Amino acid sequence: MPEYKAPLRDMSFVLNEVLDAERHYQNLPGCEEATPDMVAAIMEEGAKFSERVLSPLNQVGDQQGCTWNDGVVTTPDGFKEAYQQFVEGGWPSLAHETEWGGQGLPESLGIVLNEMVGTANWSWSMYPGLSHGAMNTLDAHGTDEQKETYLTKLISGEWTGTMCLTEPHCGTDLGMLRTKAEPQADGSYKISGTKIFISAGEHDMADNIIHIVLARLPDAPAGTKGISLFIVPKHLPDALNESNGVSCGSLEHKMGIHGNSTCVMNFDGATGYLIGTANKGLNCMFTFMNTARLGTALQGLSHAEWGFQNSLAYAKDRLQMRALNGPAYPDKAADPIIVHPEVRKMLLTQKAFAEAGRAMIYYCAQLVDKVKLCEGDEKKDADALLAFLTPIAKAFLTEVGFESANHGLQIFGGHGYIAEWGMEQNVRDSRISMLYEGTTQIQALDLLGRKVLMTQGEALKGFTKIMHKFCQTEADNSEMQAFTQPLAALNKEWGELTMNVGMKAMQNRDEVGAASVDYLMYSGYIVLGYFWARMAKVSQEKLALGEGDTAFYQAKLTTATFYFQRILPRTRSLVETMQSGADNLMSMDQEHFSF
Amino acid sequence: MPEYKAPLRDMSFVLNEVLDAERHYQNLPGCEEATPDMVAAIMEEGAKFSERVLSPLNQVGDQQGCTWNDGVVTTPDGFKEAYQQFVEGGWPSLAHETEWGGQGLPESLGIVLNEMVGTANWSWSMYPGLSHGAMNTLDAHGTDEQKETYLTKLISGEWTGTMCLTEPHCGTDLGMLRTKAEPQADGSYKISGTKIFISAGEHDMADNIIHIVLARLPDAPAGTKGISLFIVPKHLPDALNESNGVSCGSLEHKMGIHGNSTCVMNFDGATGYLIGTANKGLNCMFTFMNTARLGTALQGLSHAEWGFQNSLAYAKDRLQMRALNGPAYPDKAADPIIVHPEVRKMLLTQKAFAEAGRAMIYYCAQLVDKVKLCEGDEKKDADALLAFLTPIAKAFLTEVGFESANHGLQIFGGHGYIAEWGMEQNVRDSRISMLYEGTTQIQALDLLGRKVLMTQGEALKGFTKIMHKFCQTEADNSEMQAFTQPLAALNKEWGELTMNVGMKAMQNRDEVGAASVDYLMYSGYIVLGYFWARMAKVSQEKLALGEGDTAFYQAKLTTATFYFQRILPRTRSLVETMQSGADNLMSMDQEHFSF
Repeated sequence: MPEYKAPLRDMSFVLNEVLDAERHYQNLPGCEEATPDMVAAIMEEGAKFSERVLSPLNQVGDQQGCTWNDGVVTTPDGFKEAYQQFVEGGWPSLAHETEWGGQGLPESLGIVLNEMVGTANWSWSMYPGLSHGAMNTLDAHGTDEQKETYLTKLISGEWTGTMCLTEPHCGTDLGMLRTKAEPQADGSYKISGTKIFISAGEHDMADNIIHIVLARLPDAPAGTKGISLFIVPKHLPDALNESNGVSCGSLEHKMGIHGNSTCVMNFDGATGYLIGTANKGLNCMFTFMNTARLGTALQGLSHAEWGFQNSLAYAKDRLQMRALNGPAYPDKAADPIIVHPEVRKMLLTQKAFAEAGRAMIYYCAQLVDKVKLCEGDEKKDADALLAFLTPIAKAFLTEVGFESANHGLQIFGGHGYIAEWGMEQNVRDSRISMLYEGTTQIQALDLLGRKVLMTQGEALKGFTKIMHKFCQTEADNSEMQAFTQPLAALNKEWGELTMNVGMKAMQNRDEVGAASVDYLMYSGYIVLGYFWARMAKVSQEKLALGEGDTAFYQAKLTTATFYFQRILPRTRSLVETMQSGADNLMSMDQEHFSF
Repeated sequence: MPEYKAPLRDMSFVLNEVLDAERHYQNLPGCEEATPDMVAAIMEEGAKFSERVLSPLNQVGDQQGCTWNDGVVTTPDGFKEAYQQFVEGGWPSLAHETEWGGQGLPESLGIVLNEMVGTANWSWSMYPGLSHGAMNTLDAHGTDEQKETYLTKLISGEWTGTMCLTEPHCGTDLGMLRTKAEPQADGSYKISGTKIFISAGEHDMADNIIHIVLARLPDAPAGTKGISLFIVPKHLPDALNESNGVSCGSLEHKMGIHGNSTCVMNFDGATGYLIGTANKGLNCMFTFMNTARLGTALQGLSHAEWGFQNSLAYAKDRLQMRALNGPAYPDKAADPIIVHPEVRKMLLTQKAFAEAGRAMIYYCAQLVDKVKLCEGDEKKDADALLAFLTPIAKAFLTEVGFESANHGLQIFGGHGYIAEWGMEQNVRDSRISMLYEGTTQIQALDLLGRKVLMTQGEALKGFTKIMHKFCQTEADNSEMQAFTQPLAALNKEWGELTMNVGMKAMQNRDEVGAASVDYLMYSGYIVLGYFWARMAKVSQEKLALGEGDTAFYQAKLTTATFYFQRILPRTRSLVETMQSGADNLMSMDQEHFSF
């Protein structure tokens, strides 16, 4: 049976040794409580809950899935009880404001917890995950009365929340949405329409579900400028035993994440309440896109880490063939397959993506803290950097997370295709991550079009400056040159490529689209290269100090070298393809793709 | 509902215009009957059967799967009836010898048929596919009596066959297998043991199942040199209503290919008959590995073609967002997503792999014909070339087939994750192809270690000479230079890289493993580049003749250009990584992958 063990040593390495969380929290207004001891205690408790309660339910969730019966949705065995434990442990309130019952801890700590919860059982983690999105929306745009009524119940975990955006005919293009909101005399609205792909839309884990719904007022302008945001509870707070005209029409049959209920939600004149300003609903949503996308980026890391742990155990255990240089264990019937270079390559690929992905996400999470709690330039800079890194984190980490999940499966040979081992579930579960919260292609357009080119490259410079400074600081450190020299060269190339694409795009906007995914992946490889270089630097310093944990730090250096020699060269192909121009994509007549 | 339409125009282009099947068949002893008219008629009938009978059962097969009840296996609704129609149509006998009831048509025509059958419904196609493997084994190694008894029934389709190799503790490493064969006084053997992953091992489609089983005689030497091959029927021919001690213990729960019964088979003193020479069973198997692997290579093409057809239809239909250069269809609510460069890139990638994959497989199939029917140097050369190309076809085409299936899913956005559209089934079904018949990693070791380096590069030269000649012949053709110049450069580089790796491998065998998958993928990109260049050349000639079909040939040129500009540059990264050496994989201590 597959297992998950929270990699606490690796997590603490990134958090404390690479990103200096102690100083980060001491400098954050209101986060002085997040001392290293407290952080360590939270991580340990989170690890226990994830390993002991959630991980054993991961396969159960896949096999049973959710069931629908006349509008009532039942979650897999154990899901409800695990949620109860989660609530009793006070986990939902961790990173929310004390004013509404939260514990007031920083968002970045919530993300550390989410890593463990999500890696142990991604489907389960989506129930509190969607609540978190609803909470953040209410927190930023709700009135005090709305917060008092809804936010407190969400923070306590008594109720859960959802985000209702997609409709059958529009997902990416929300400007086309049709759900109607008709104003009532009492200031409320009647909401009518159908939403699809609503994660955690209906379930049996909590007494009430608060839907955050995008809808259109009768006089709203067409397109994205006519969308408003509404609170639509399953049950109105003063009538908890009555229906509010919200119902789950069916569950989707999905490739994976079977443990999560993906619902078609029907709103039949349901009573709702406006959040924020009318017709500004999409802007309100965008405020939280960064956090939501970072949450999905985490899924890439989760499936890479999970696949790595389980395929590593198998690679050490499975005896098959001999090492190429002759028997490594002559007394055994065959050698464990970890002796084979290609098995090691697949293991190291998963490991390298998981560990640098973690560094990137924790780094972004600290930026989220700063955006939320700092002021002035510090807030502004963090916001710009986060806006630039978020589409890369979301798309790149989910793409390489899916790749990693597939490596994990491949290491098992034919057994990887069999459900019992869990590896194929890991692949199926991970596949959604490149689709929801904006596909890879949408993230790529966001990165290259909106973030980089629309700021005349300023967004990129914000990051390349940081990399440049790092490379310069280490310029005389001969042990770091294997990392800093290629990084410095890539840093320069990145700017030049951006300029080239930008020039072409001024003539033809299709050039942006034609370069965008390659540009995003290229950027992702470099960003992870930067984090591997930083991890290498810390490891070298620790080794030089000779304070122990030698093997741990040595393994980091070995993995960094692997990344630079085996993964980073993928940029060489992308440099060529992203510059090959839009013509090789656009010149095919639409009717001539097939005859 | 997803659909499949046999791409007869594309198939005929490769078969007749690129590979000149007419001349090929006229030169093959005994194949004079395979005239262009006959070939066209077979293709049309095969297309009808695949489109009308098999394709509608593809989703049914996935949703219902096979069921097991006390050893009895029931296939999904319609599978049995479709098989009956297949038998009545005489399809199983197509490419088998007339002496035993076959139609005596060449193997390469069988592969053309298999493309349509397999693309329409891969799970279903595996039932006759495994029979075909059993038939080929009997044909080559069985006695006339065995052929009379078993082969005739398999060729008629009354019975089906399987190949029983894998055991719970060994798949890749067959030398470890334990199934026993005890000689009996009457010359038969009692077979005892457990085999797993037996495709089509038990089902309700035919009256009897003939298992070809690898087992070990009591006095057999250890390892691969002590393996013998046996015929073990489900029912003995003279006792068709009695059990022969062969039973299906259970069905595997798999990621995909649910319509095919993947069985655990128990042999409890079952009566079996030796095929070929004792202890030479593995050699007998290897004779047919090339054909079996080519059959799996076909799966890569199948999933690419299927994904392409269905995602193309969706991309033309789905309205979402506007073209980057402004509305393409201002009168519609939005533009169809095919206006977007990145959607086109995913479509063209699937198309380019499917079409050149087809050319490669049909080319290999002609080599199979020559190996089977020619003599002397012609046979020898074809055999060497086929041995070299087979691991590339098997591993490379299944890897890019899986990539393509994922592009198809991605084009559907969130809907791609939902079962109803069939795109996620296409991904799940395709995932097995990189595992069975030898994983990608095993194929890569076979290619670089056994085929290329053990022949001192001769196997490679056999192919690079052909490419060299092509490039030279076209050297003065200015319209072809966009293809021949990069190909000629790659051809040279391929030889140099092989030399470099070979030199390193003489010091350290791990260097072979460490370079092998990158080397195989690099080789695959070049081989498909060669076939795209050949298709481009034919298209240019036809366009120059001005005999019509202009749009068709123009589309081939556009796709060839796409391949050279967007896909072939992937070799740039592989050149770097394959030369980065074994050290970055081997230096990590086995115990330090994780802490």
